[in-house]
Amino acid sequence: MFSAMRYETGRLHLIDQRFLPLEERWLVCADLETVAVAIETMVVRGAPAIGCTAAFGLAIHARNAQFQYWKDFRINFYAGYDRLQRTRPTAVNLFYALKKMSAEAELFDDALSKDECVRRLETVAVALFDDDINTCRQIGQHGLSLWSESRKLRVLTHCNTGSLATAGYGTALGIIRSLHQAGALEAVYVDETRPYMQGTRLTSYELKADGIPFELICDSSAAYLMSQGKVDWVVVGADRIAANGDTANKIGTYSLAVNCQYHNVAFYVAAPLATFDPSTASGKDIPVEMRTPDEITKLFGQQVAPSGIACLNPSFDVTPASLITGIVTELGVLRPPFTDSIAAALNVQRAEGGFCP
Amino acid sequence: MFSAMRYETGRLHLIDQRFLPLEERWLVCADLETVAVAIETMVVRGAPAIGCTAAFGLAIHARNAQFQYWKDFRINFYAGYDRLQRTRPTAVNLFYALKKMSAEAELFDDALSKDECVRRLETVAVALFDDDINTCRQIGQHGLSLWSESRKLRVLTHCNTGSLATAGYGTALGIIRSLHQAGALEAVYVDETRPYMQGTRLTSYELKADGIPFELICDSSAAYLMSQGKVDWVVVGADRIAANGDTANKIGTYSLAVNCQYHNVAFYVAAPLATFDPSTASGKDIPVEMRTPDEITKLFGQQVAPSGIACLNPSFDVTPASLITGIVTELGVLRPPFTDSIAAALNVQRAEGGFCP
Repeated sequence: MFSAMRYETGRLHLIDQRFLPLEERWLVCADLETVAVAIETMVVRGAPAIGCTAAFGLAIHARNAQFQYWKDFRINFYAGYDRLQRTRPTAVNLFYALKKMSAEAELFDDALSKDECVRRLETVAVALFDDDINTCRQIGQHGLSLWSESRKLRVLTHCNTGSLATAGYGTALGIIRSLHQAGALEAVYVDETRPYMQGTRLTSYELKADGIPFELICDSSAAYLMSQGKVDWVVVGADRIAANGDTANKIGTYSLAVNCQYHNVAFYVAAPLATFDPSTASGKDIPVEMRTPDEITKLFGQQVAPSGIACLNPSFDVTPASLITGIVTELGVLRPPFTDSIAAALNVQRAEGGFCP
Repeated sequence: MFSAMRYETGRLHLIDQRFLPLEERWLVCADLETVAVAIETMVVRGAPAIGCTAAFGLAIHARNAQFQYWKDFRINFYAGYDRLQRTRPTAVNLFYALKKMSAEAELFDDALSKDECVRRLETVAVALFDDDINTCRQIGQHGLSLWSESRKLRVLTHCNTGSLATAGYGTALGIIRSLHQAGALEAVYVDETRPYMQGTRLTSYELKADGIPFELICDSSAAYLMSQGKVDWVVVGADRIAANGDTANKIGTYSLAVNCQYHNVAFYVAAPLATFDPSTASGKDIPVEMRTPDEITKLFGQQVAPSGIACLNPSFDVTPASLITGIVTELGVLRPPFTDSIAAALNVQRAEGGFCP
């Protein structure tokens, strides 16, 4: 299976998503700062992929440091933690992965050797990566269980939630992959996803590679297709899901959800439990990242707007739980009322020994 | 006042909007085919501007023809009419302008000289152009009358409906101009308007030139701004309004209207009576133009999507009358039920000697 990241002894190889689909260029990250900048500049993006990248970043940070015992590295470890924590504010998987790494580090003994520290941190990072792939496959299967088999589905998706956004397989795109394998798809519509064109550049790239037929549309055409009765489901990923089910995701998701309600179209969110943030009560408390106006005024380096104008470029929006039909996780499909179903799912995860931030 | 078209004795000068805002290049149309291709390729766009362009095209067609008396040109005149009629299907102002020209021609006597034919056709085309500017100014004033003065407005608009889309001043953008002159604006948000970027390229260009402060946003950010309580009105233009008030306009308009209803934001359409088509009963009967995938897969000539993928590129959508707060025309603001208010307005126009197709 295609993966956009590969770790080998102190080096994280990332496909540079900024050049896709025109060029498959790989970036080798051999130090923490390179990893941090790769996240900030969107060499890698997608909530689960950012989480895995940050975990490998901390492992690399430990490997590169000069120390004999853990006690001599502890402060520096948390400096690296802080640097990565400040890269992007909205997706919670980043913080989940960092906390999982620090939870491991908190178990370390001050007499632990550097080699042992590095080995254990790498083991956690690799486990996060492997878990994400398994999780995505489970999400795909649970998504497939929503299909009634009475007739094929027309599914619309937004942004990129596939192998490029996760360790592999994908969340919302994982469900689309599972539906395709089951012969359940009549049509797939892909939003281009302005301003960063994740749909045009990345989802198109993945679907074409997998031989899954699709049509690319402008974000604002989704409502038109719904009005023509051409959409059965909208399925999207998530960057953070609050305790009440409010979901932050790529800008444009919220408008789709409002349109789904108006047109009576099912609106599904697909996300691993690592995307849930029980410490965030509702969407009001999720910080929405504002990115540079250049993403709107320039297209591939070409100025398209008059110079010097003001732009507003929120990278995410928050869809209230009231507009969500179901949230597909590795433990199954959560249904309203989400405050209860989310708490129950996180309790199951804790009971099974899973990590919950 | 800035105008994007200028007619002088057999030559129509059009600003080539495809190169804005980077370059102010003018195209001189000296024959009918050049005019037709200019409309098809979007050198000129915007429903009222297309209407004026087509009228001048027929005048040029008559001036260029070799004939002594009208009877010898009649068939050729209608061949030109047909050529222009096939350029773009959705905006009704094109057909309105052509019919106004042919209505004049139908009054011609077969003994009428070429010079007299040309003079009369040019007079009608120039009158259409002048009327459109006056109409836009009236729309601006009626739009201003909707402002309660209790507090300044945050207005969001889509596409370009200004001097570049009309003979001058603009419809929805004319209202924004009037609001600005009256000191009624707190904020203007401009949708970039994918795929053709009329907001980024054209509306930004006009507002910057007029010194009206604004912020450019991605189309899909509009719902986010509404959710933050930052939008009081959405005001858009129209390409065709059916007898029941259903309104075809640039793709993305419908999604805005659905979001306006969800967020309790006023949704105004601004259009001259020439945009109403009483022969179209409802939106179902309005043809929606599908344009080339290249508009989505390429950005300024640069390929951005994987090659050979399928796209769906509807250029317009239809907003049902039920989502429209009011339609601002040169005769005032029409309110629901629109079937009645539209019929009444068109009757007033007929009674005042106005032309109704």
